[in-house]
Amino acid sequence: MTAQKDRLYLFDTTLRDGQQTQGVQFSTAEKFQITDALDNLGVDYIEGGWPGANPTDSEFFEQAPKTKATFLAFGMTKRAGRSAENDEVLAGVMNAGTKAVCLVGKTHDFHVTTALGITLDENLENISASIAHLVKSGREALFDAEHFFDGYKANPDYALQCLKAAYDAGARWVVLCDTNGGTLPDEIYKITRKVIESGIEGARLGIHTHDDTGNAVANSLAAVTAGVRQIQGTLNGLGERCGNANLITLIPTLLLKEPFKSTLHSNVPEEALQNLVQVSRMLDDILNRVPTRSAPYVGASAFAHKAGLHASAILKDPTTYEHIEPEVVGNQRIVPMSNQAGQSNLRKRLGDMGLNLPKNDPAMGRILDRIKQLEGDGYSFDTAQASFELLARSEIGLLPQFFAVERYRATVERRLDARGKMSHLSEATVVVNIGGERLLSVSEGIIADGSDGGPVNALSKALVKDLGPYQSLIEDMELVDYKVRITQGGTEARTRVIIDHEDSTGRRWSTVGVSSNIIDASFEALLDAINWKLVQDGAQALGAQ
Amino acid sequence: MTAQKDRLYLFDTTLRDGQQTQGVQFSTAEKFQITDALDNLGVDYIEGGWPGANPTDSEFFEQAPKTKATFLAFGMTKRAGRSAENDEVLAGVMNAGTKAVCLVGKTHDFHVTTALGITLDENLENISASIAHLVKSGREALFDAEHFFDGYKANPDYALQCLKAAYDAGARWVVLCDTNGGTLPDEIYKITRKVIESGIEGARLGIHTHDDTGNAVANSLAAVTAGVRQIQGTLNGLGERCGNANLITLIPTLLLKEPFKSTLHSNVPEEALQNLVQVSRMLDDILNRVPTRSAPYVGASAFAHKAGLHASAILKDPTTYEHIEPEVVGNQRIVPMSNQAGQSNLRKRLGDMGLNLPKNDPAMGRILDRIKQLEGDGYSFDTAQASFELLARSEIGLLPQFFAVERYRATVERRLDARGKMSHLSEATVVVNIGGERLLSVSEGIIADGSDGGPVNALSKALVKDLGPYQSLIEDMELVDYKVRITQGGTEARTRVIIDHEDSTGRRWSTVGVSSNIIDASFEALLDAINWKLVQDGAQALGAQ
Repeated sequence: MTAQKDRLYLFDTTLRDGQQTQGVQFSTAEKFQITDALDNLGVDYIEGGWPGANPTDSEFFEQAPKTKATFLAFGMTKRAGRSAENDEVLAGVMNAGTKAVCLVGKTHDFHVTTALGITLDENLENISASIAHLVKSGREALFDAEHFFDGYKANPDYALQCLKAAYDAGARWVVLCDTNGGTLPDEIYKITRKVIESGIEGARLGIHTHDDTGNAVANSLAAVTAGVRQIQGTLNGLGERCGNANLITLIPTLLLKEPFKSTLHSNVPEEALQNLVQVSRMLDDILNRVPTRSAPYVGASAFAHKAGLHASAILKDPTTYEHIEPEVVGNQRIVPMSNQAGQSNLRKRLGDMGLNLPKNDPAMGRILDRIKQLEGDGYSFDTAQASFELLARSEIGLLPQFFAVERYRATVERRLDARGKMSHLSEATVVVNIGGERLLSVSEGIIADGSDGGPVNALSKALVKDLGPYQSLIEDMELVDYKVRITQGGTEARTRVIIDHEDSTGRRWSTVGVSSNIIDASFEALLDAINWKLVQDGAQALGAQ
Repeated sequence: MTAQKDRLYLFDTTLRDGQQTQGVQFSTAEKFQITDALDNLGVDYIEGGWPGANPTDSEFFEQAPKTKATFLAFGMTKRAGRSAENDEVLAGVMNAGTKAVCLVGKTHDFHVTTALGITLDENLENISASIAHLVKSGREALFDAEHFFDGYKANPDYALQCLKAAYDAGARWVVLCDTNGGTLPDEIYKITRKVIESGIEGARLGIHTHDDTGNAVANSLAAVTAGVRQIQGTLNGLGERCGNANLITLIPTLLLKEPFKSTLHSNVPEEALQNLVQVSRMLDDILNRVPTRSAPYVGASAFAHKAGLHASAILKDPTTYEHIEPEVVGNQRIVPMSNQAGQSNLRKRLGDMGLNLPKNDPAMGRILDRIKQLEGDGYSFDTAQASFELLARSEIGLLPQFFAVERYRATVERRLDARGKMSHLSEATVVVNIGGERLLSVSEGIIADGSDGGPVNALSKALVKDLGPYQSLIEDMELVDYKVRITQGGTEARTRVIIDHEDSTGRRWSTVGVSSNIIDASFEALLDAINWKLVQDGAQALGAQ
């Protein structure tokens, strides 16, 4: 008879603790987007923020998101010298009307006396009265035991009394928080065992860690191993200082690895794992952050095998250098270009593109040399696959010349008008030669809202405005992403631009351009994008005179 | 009598395993720079690369860096069917003539039979013969037990036999490697204990982890707790896929936190801790990577306190929300701007700038409102302190008008010359009004090597070319850093530019500009930079007509 699995609960605080990150402020629309993603992932609790205390949070709670998960409000235990009913900050939290409420309270004697300036007994009363108030009001009550591990080390009896006060008052969950993030995994395990031995059951205990020593994930796992059954974390480990425990990192480990796989079950269905990459990127997009390439499970490089030895073994059998299959979490394997790549990987990569070369074809050596040289100049072909394909075709002799750009000019002008208001104007002119015919085009850089989109926008439009016989093939090209990096090319700083396009077939391709001049780098990437499209669509090359 | 502390050895593989990261290729000069930093930090072993196998590594070994640390070469155990003396790849490693050599060898039966295609006994012979060869040649021998933990789980006896083969052949160190990165801390601990119980002393055992489950640091600590006495890692956790164990994260924990602090001593002096931030940034600079703001200990945000509650407590006593003092690791505390900042923090920040406002001055509310509004438009004042100061001064009424820009025009032109070569030209014109007098300036964007520096470079030069009466005050301004981010400003993508300047006093200041147009965003940041300098230097304001 198989042993019954314990229920493990996942609690997300991206919208509350995550929002305490420097530079982060979610709009209400973004909060709904994140809430939906969390709900679909299968988390059990979604902490929406602190209504009353944060005006932007209040607005979100007023719109009362409907979720399968338990949507809750965060706040703090009442202040001393008043009843729970009469604490206006607590009232603000209650008034949001959520099914559950999580209140943070002090459990470290030093904080009670120094930060709050009250007695240890007053703090206990604050905790029990606040939790009792929640329970009496029919809410599910959660207690965040702030600074618990530091508090336990300083005064274990008092820290435990604080937990008991919440537990006895009817808290569904008592969450042990490593607020300053300085506790190590072994300590988390030992102290959590002490808590359970003191009479507070693991099934009502949670863990809330921070990454200040790089152990947020390990600390969460240690607490679960000790018997805790709720983990609090955020998407992408967002959070104050070094961030909270990363749920994106924890979820696959809990579902796929022993002993958790066999002894615990959460509300996350195995299929949801495949959406992890997309959920992680969604948050990066909202925050306009560059995704962390090396992020466990979901990073773009998480399954990238550069070393020549690793790469050849992977081709034989992926389990040689991968601890799980990338597809399980919605990721993919990459064998990138580098001076360690070797001809066998290149040959495979070219084959994937439909360019089949015989073994030992000298073109491969030429391609590797060119890549190495360009990478030294600041180019990166790891993601700019379309530019890589054009380079390879060029070395193989399979790249037609469709047209040539004789010259271009991009201008940005800003002037103070008579009323003292600034107005901008960008304009670009492009002269192309197609089969001996010269075509001149000019465009302004005006974007959807009528404002100035800038010189790259103007140039991109001028370039695709009139490509003569090729026009029908490029009309459905849409620039969907534009990334700029200042990089090293020899001794000078260079600008590297990577542009993504999509067309009506849903195809998406990336091209790269590098120059000391951002306009020129962008232009190079644009040219590659057009040429790649023309190659893919089998355009007849007319050359240039 | 105090217990004797065990000696803990730190082994850095930034130049070898770190270089296996996608997109990373160190020049020889950079390898020397990194080696120096590691040596000064106090690491014991510096793995320089794989001479013979990687041409760029061979060049580095030829120059034979002199280090206090043990500088070593990496390679692999000999192939089957030949002697160690006759394996040419091994010979390439030996020929580098380093004091120590580290060889990686298989310890997972599956890899022996599948990846290598040899028998289990042949593999054992490869290991012992290779290590014996090193010892006979007078080198310190290290054995990297590849895939050890997976190998132990699959076939514990065989995995231990592999270790024994190296150990008995005279290896100074046998390093347990979690090559695929999928092992969890508890497993690391238990398996390491088994290794020690099998007769291989902890004082000759090392640990080498990867971050594929976010546990590289915790796994290293678990192994040390189990008795291992060498940790292998990299600076900033650089490495294949999700990276190696981050030495920058591990070193402060090992030196500052129990039980490690009291039971182990390394070669890292406590003063070296203060250089950690600088060492970490040095590597980011070399790689042209944006430093990870949330990195434990050294991240720019590692000691950033955004939440209003945290921030006010911090002002009273920093130990309330910090697990160590930031200065110990060369970092600093930040209380950033945000809608949670509150007036007390703002007042303190203004005071730090020499702008002392009385409590409850209405200007503070206006400043917070403007910051909130601008942050919604994509501005970020967390790092652009000089722009923040100008904004505050403007609201307080303490910002003079030095000049106005009536208009500017920036042009980028590229043309194919008669020989078919591309030439670029950037030019900018600026018209300023100083006290009613109109000054017109034009500049080209030519940089040090004679190539085209682009429109921002041209504009920056035109702007500071002739500012009339202010000229002497701005002549020593130098643009030292330029960062571009595409960010969100309402519904449109916006470009945010942050520019750093330095002057002859060594002062360094950051300004920000945001626009849909990168040229204009840059211009805004440049204007702020000039105005800030004029304010600091007490220029007499002549206004504009």
